[in-house]
Amino acid sequence: MTSETSRERVVAILIYPGFTALDMIGPYDVLATLPDTKVHLVAETSDLVMTDTGILGVQPTATMADISTPDVFLVPGGPGTMAVLENKQVLEWIKTVHETSTWTTSVCTGSLILGAAGLLEGLIATTYWASQQFSDRFGATFVAERYVQEGKIVTAAGVSAGVNMVIFLASQLADDEIAQVIELALEYDPTPPFGTGSISKATEKIANLALKLIRDRTAA
Amino acid sequence: MTSETSRERVVAILIYPGFTALDMIGPYDVLATLPDTKVHLVAETSDLVMTDTGILGVQPTATMADISTPDVFLVPGGPGTMAVLENKQVLEWIKTVHETSTWTTSVCTGSLILGAAGLLEGLIATTYWASQQFSDRFGATFVAERYVQEGKIVTAAGVSAGVNMVIFLASQLADDEIAQVIELALEYDPTPPFGTGSISKATEKIANLALKLIRDRTAA
Repeated sequence: MTSETSRERVVAILIYPGFTALDMIGPYDVLATLPDTKVHLVAETSDLVMTDTGILGVQPTATMADISTPDVFLVPGGPGTMAVLENKQVLEWIKTVHETSTWTTSVCTGSLILGAAGLLEGLIATTYWASQQFSDRFGATFVAERYVQEGKIVTAAGVSAGVNMVIFLASQLADDEIAQVIELALEYDPTPPFGTGSISKATEKIANLALKLIRDRTAA
Repeated sequence: MTSETSRERVVAILIYPGFTALDMIGPYDVLATLPDTKVHLVAETSDLVMTDTGILGVQPTATMADISTPDVFLVPGGPGTMAVLENKQVLEWIKTVHETSTWTTSVCTGSLILGAAGLLEGLIATTYWASQQFSDRFGATFVAERYVQEGKIVTAAGVSAGVNMVIFLASQLADDEIAQVIELALEYDPTPPFGTGSISKATEKIANLALKLIRDRTAA
């Protein structure tokens, strides 16, 4: 069913204060389902990491000091992204991890973190629709796609796009068949009730209200 | 934008050992985004609750003793469901909570828990596609829908169907406009890479492999 070798694949997902849980959980769930794969939730310290709502706390399974050569690296986004863009220690760790990774990936504003680590220079990438104004500074060309692959770097659009991206990633890490199996295991057959989930499909009023909601959440 | 009163809405999401994180995180994220809404992650004790992968631990924010009259109750599914079906204390708490709730909801095999609490007698409901064989015993008629509303009870299909269901729920708790805003905030414009996320769309081979994967995960 897969073309795995006997060596266990190591996945490192970076979590940090103020990340958006849903950015991370889809990818985590899919990657944890792959055969011969060990997923680590990596943080700066072993303290509980509070997500952007201030409600959900997630326990890291490893610190940055424990993990240096994962096969797959993923960074989620969220309001906490802005602080990580200034965190030299985290950005240095990401640069190091990227040197030996097979895949370096992001969801939502996580791509800005890859950008701040200098990994997107000259590349095409995507990010959260509401954060494209931050993207100029990283030397990348940001486009509105569900996910974008550039060599071993894959960036996904906002939040729920992480599930799309990681199913693609599963097909690359294993094969199409296991990716199809995972789609069914997640019953991933979505039917958005309103169809306003893309900025290209939402009215200006809905877009402005969404921007206000995001600002309020980021401020809180 | 909403028809909220000044009273804060209380949401209780039950978490238990072996629940599937993705069942819970979509609903949690959407409900935590609604104005004037307080979301509690409720467990039997205040200990960290380990999800089905054995990797992700979630910190409860309240115990069952703390919360008795939430407006909205939601229970996720996962391999841990089977133990909850036998847990009289949890089932009694759910019965009590349901007496005064405005909405009682489930994702994935969470509907079996509602069934075991006696809440689905004579109703139409849905559950995870791979668990319909357990559904006979609760006096409900299980159907293959993304989500099913019966009065104040809403049951969703597997895992990612929770996001579908909770956007509907947001439209009921607030209004269509805020539900549309949330779809955009989550960039919920999914394009499943393989289109095998429903048992009605997957081949028999993919279905059998998915059942094996689910069995392996449940056994682990």
